Amino acid sequence: MTSPLDTLIIGAGTAGLAALREVRKRTDRFLIVNDGPWGTTCARVGCMPSKMLIEAANALHARRRWENFGLCGGQDARADLPAVLERVRALRDEFVAGTLRASDAGDRAVSGRARLLDARHVEVGGRTWEARSIIVASGSRPVVPDEWLAFGDRVLTTDTLFEQPTLGPRMAVIGLGPLGAELAQALARLGVEVVAFVTSDQVAGLQDAQVNAALLEQLKREFAISVGQHAQLRELAGGIEVSNGQTTVVVDQVLAAMGRTPNIEFLGVDTLGPVLDARGLPPIEPCTLQVGDTSVFMAGDVDRDRPLLHEGADEGHIAGINAVLAAQGQPLRRFRRRVPLAITFCEPNAASVGLPWKEIESRPHLVGEVNYARQGRARVAQRNAGLLRVYASPDDGRLLGAQLCAPAGEHLAQLLALAIDRELTVQQLLRMPIYHPTLEEGLRSALRQVARQLEPASDSDLSDCENLGAAALD
Amino acid sequence: MTSPLDTLIIGAGTAGLAALREVRKRTDRFLIVNDGPWGTTCARVGCMPSKMLIEAANALHARRRWENFGLCGGQDARADLPAVLERVRALRDEFVAGTLRASDAGDRAVSGRARLLDARHVEVGGRTWEARSIIVASGSRPVVPDEWLAFGDRVLTTDTLFEQPTLGPRMAVIGLGPLGAELAQALARLGVEVVAFVTSDQVAGLQDAQVNAALLEQLKREFAISVGQHAQLRELAGGIEVSNGQTTVVVDQVLAAMGRTPNIEFLGVDTLGPVLDARGLPPIEPCTLQVGDTSVFMAGDVDRDRPLLHEGADEGHIAGINAVLAAQGQPLRRFRRRVPLAITFCEPNAASVGLPWKEIESRPHLVGEVNYARQGRARVAQRNAGLLRVYASPDDGRLLGAQLCAPAGEHLAQLLALAIDRELTVQQLLRMPIYHPTLEEGLRSALRQVARQLEPASDSDLSDCENLGAAALD
Repeated sequence: MTSPLDTLIIGAGTAGLAALREVRKRTDRFLIVNDGPWGTTCARVGCMPSKMLIEAANALHARRRWENFGLCGGQDARADLPAVLERVRALRDEFVAGTLRASDAGDRAVSGRARLLDARHVEVGGRTWEARSIIVASGSRPVVPDEWLAFGDRVLTTDTLFEQPTLGPRMAVIGLGPLGAELAQALARLGVEVVAFVTSDQVAGLQDAQVNAALLEQLKREFAISVGQHAQLRELAGGIEVSNGQTTVVVDQVLAAMGRTPNIEFLGVDTLGPVLDARGLPPIEPCTLQVGDTSVFMAGDVDRDRPLLHEGADEGHIAGINAVLAAQGQPLRRFRRRVPLAITFCEPNAASVGLPWKEIESRPHLVGEVNYARQGRARVAQRNAGLLRVYASPDDGRLLGAQLCAPAGEHLAQLLALAIDRELTVQQLLRMPIYHPTLEEGLRSALRQVARQLEPASDSDLSDCENLGAAALD
Repeated sequence: MTSPLDTLIIGAGTAGLAALREVRKRTDRFLIVNDGPWGTTCARVGCMPSKMLIEAANALHARRRWENFGLCGGQDARADLPAVLERVRALRDEFVAGTLRASDAGDRAVSGRARLLDARHVEVGGRTWEARSIIVASGSRPVVPDEWLAFGDRVLTTDTLFEQPTLGPRMAVIGLGPLGAELAQALARLGVEVVAFVTSDQVAGLQDAQVNAALLEQLKREFAISVGQHAQLRELAGGIEVSNGQTTVVVDQVLAAMGRTPNIEFLGVDTLGPVLDARGLPPIEPCTLQVGDTSVFMAGDVDRDRPLLHEGADEGHIAGINAVLAAQGQPLRRFRRRVPLAITFCEPNAASVGLPWKEIESRPHLVGEVNYARQGRARVAQRNAGLLRVYASPDDGRLLGAQLCAPAGEHLAQLLALAIDRELTVQQLLRMPIYHPTLEEGLRSALRQVARQLEPASDSDLSDCENLGAAALD
């Protein structure tokens, strides 16, 4: 009987590796267990390969602006899809190699499926390990209805999409959440004939109906979107028939972009004691990531809360620090979570920052907005599409949140995220210098709209004072 | 003898029009006088047309990335320069029309050259106006050596560049300040054979030698840059010979991008009383824009300080407010100026934010930097070139400034400008959520470098705490 480990980490993805970094700084009595391929979801099948596909697609799509700019040629421009995918895999492999180096823990890294026996014992491949604390970071996987498995590799997910020798020519994309919206647009721009099937017209994770409508209008110019019942697949001689009661098409491949589900079923979390919720998850304290009052911690996509890379990394660090504290019998540390930020890399970029729209909607709030169709720099660049809306408190002008689909929206979202993190008012934000001609000037218009509502009496006077960003010194 | 005006505004550019907005809200006893074409430098010959040329050039240049992305075709891509310039002028005319509407002041708008007789009298076209206060916003014009005038419209400035039916095929660009760097690169990308002549290898307004070197390396890949003596022009049968002692070339056109000089000589500022400096400028109070103790105010490019649109607009508002106060015998208001921000829209974008490098250099400071050659998102997009450096106080980690040439540098600069305006420390800035995969992650690496220098004892611990952006709640 060996003495117990301090910490056992289940999963070597983004959260597990972040936890590993914290754990190995504090103890060498740890084990990291991973089931399936090593390398993070982000690097293998998520953020990175999808962004490579998107960047290639956008580079080709830029060709559409040539005539208006006075540029000519390029009528024969097209994507060589096998070459595009080859490049995606080559660069992807470099990024994966980076994560593998980070997870190199010698004989303290074990491949195999882990199963909790209780809050202190884990079984891996027939061997039982005792650990003073356990980190569950087993990640998530794409949702695919069981009955679609019969279609083999013609029903794709992000796990398999980038492995294909080529794609299309006809593809149905099921779901237009952040991932579906990004990939449907990228594939359409690369020349795949895309039809998207959705059960609601809410896309890219946007909650504000007006911003959502603005994005939808842009996406519909590039590929067909059908809103209807859940899509049904049927084998035909010429391909797969996809139907949702509104639209029926025959395609060569189907991309299931219906979200992800936590890898939780085989973990044995029911042995931990606390009562599981309807999703099979135990109660998790969000500031410590502790499961109930056990010494088990959950981090990353597996807990379904904030399934985003930067949050998964944060959770890994929090779990790593607290798991070692728990192993040492020390009190846990509570951490402040970050301002919510979600970005979808379609064009125009979609983003949500700060409080969710549902919370904003249910309380008094002021709205300022800018339509990028008429914005100067956006017109100059022929990128003049999109809508940005900011929400602020009517009491003090404090920025509460923002939703947007806008050119360079990913950067505008980062600026807004800093402002919200620092709890700035729109007046304070209007004090920053805004260069000309920039897309940030559009954001300024939206902020000024809010400022004018805050001081209706001084109306244009106030707005001009903010023009200055200049407060009287005396 | 009519009663005096409250305020007379000389110049209807960005600063003059901003002043007009403030003045007309407060009095209808004003006059605005403009010499030459109405419409701002920005809209007519500055920011806007240059950005149109740049956006067209960059759209075409994106073609260079196609092979690596797996895209094909477009070997015949080229700029139809007459069409490019036609589009620039058409859209430019729309923007100018906007500024003309803003300056529509009926019979209180007068065309003609204004001359100060003293601090209360202005002569315009033989008529003398008395005004209780005067705003001088007469702007600036491109510098061209007198001896170059003989070459006629083959020596171009931004005043004439966009009016040409076509450009090149061979062009010398004299000077690589912000404007020269932007236009030389854009013209080269549009197929013009460009040779740039400079007297120092400092380009795009960058002061940090390392950032400057990084940008220079990129620019040299696109066009020739010769450092030498002041360029000399000589008429030859086949064109204009340009020589600087190092390099001699024969070109069809020369673009003089040697800076701008204030339109001050004919104004009669020597009649105001205060002693003029070597540049012919009177002393100006930066927070009120008052000239000496007169009721004359100077705003915009004419005062040479901060010749940027957003600063010119600020100065117009400040001068407009204070000129009316002066006319009414009220005390002047003092305004806080904005955090310095300058952006050059070459690729990668160059920017300076916060304290100038000279000031940083002369005081204790910490530096953090990131090389975008190896940055993840930049590699994915094939935009992996550039260097970003941030400077912080060693006492408290407060961000002092930054210089950069980086992909999406204009947006990174705006984020840094907000941080510096709010006097944030690098630790505070590291608390914001940074999405993945973004170019802002590169900035985060630079900030973390500074953070580690601030707390060498806890080294990676500290950096990991910042990873979290999470402070213990208890």
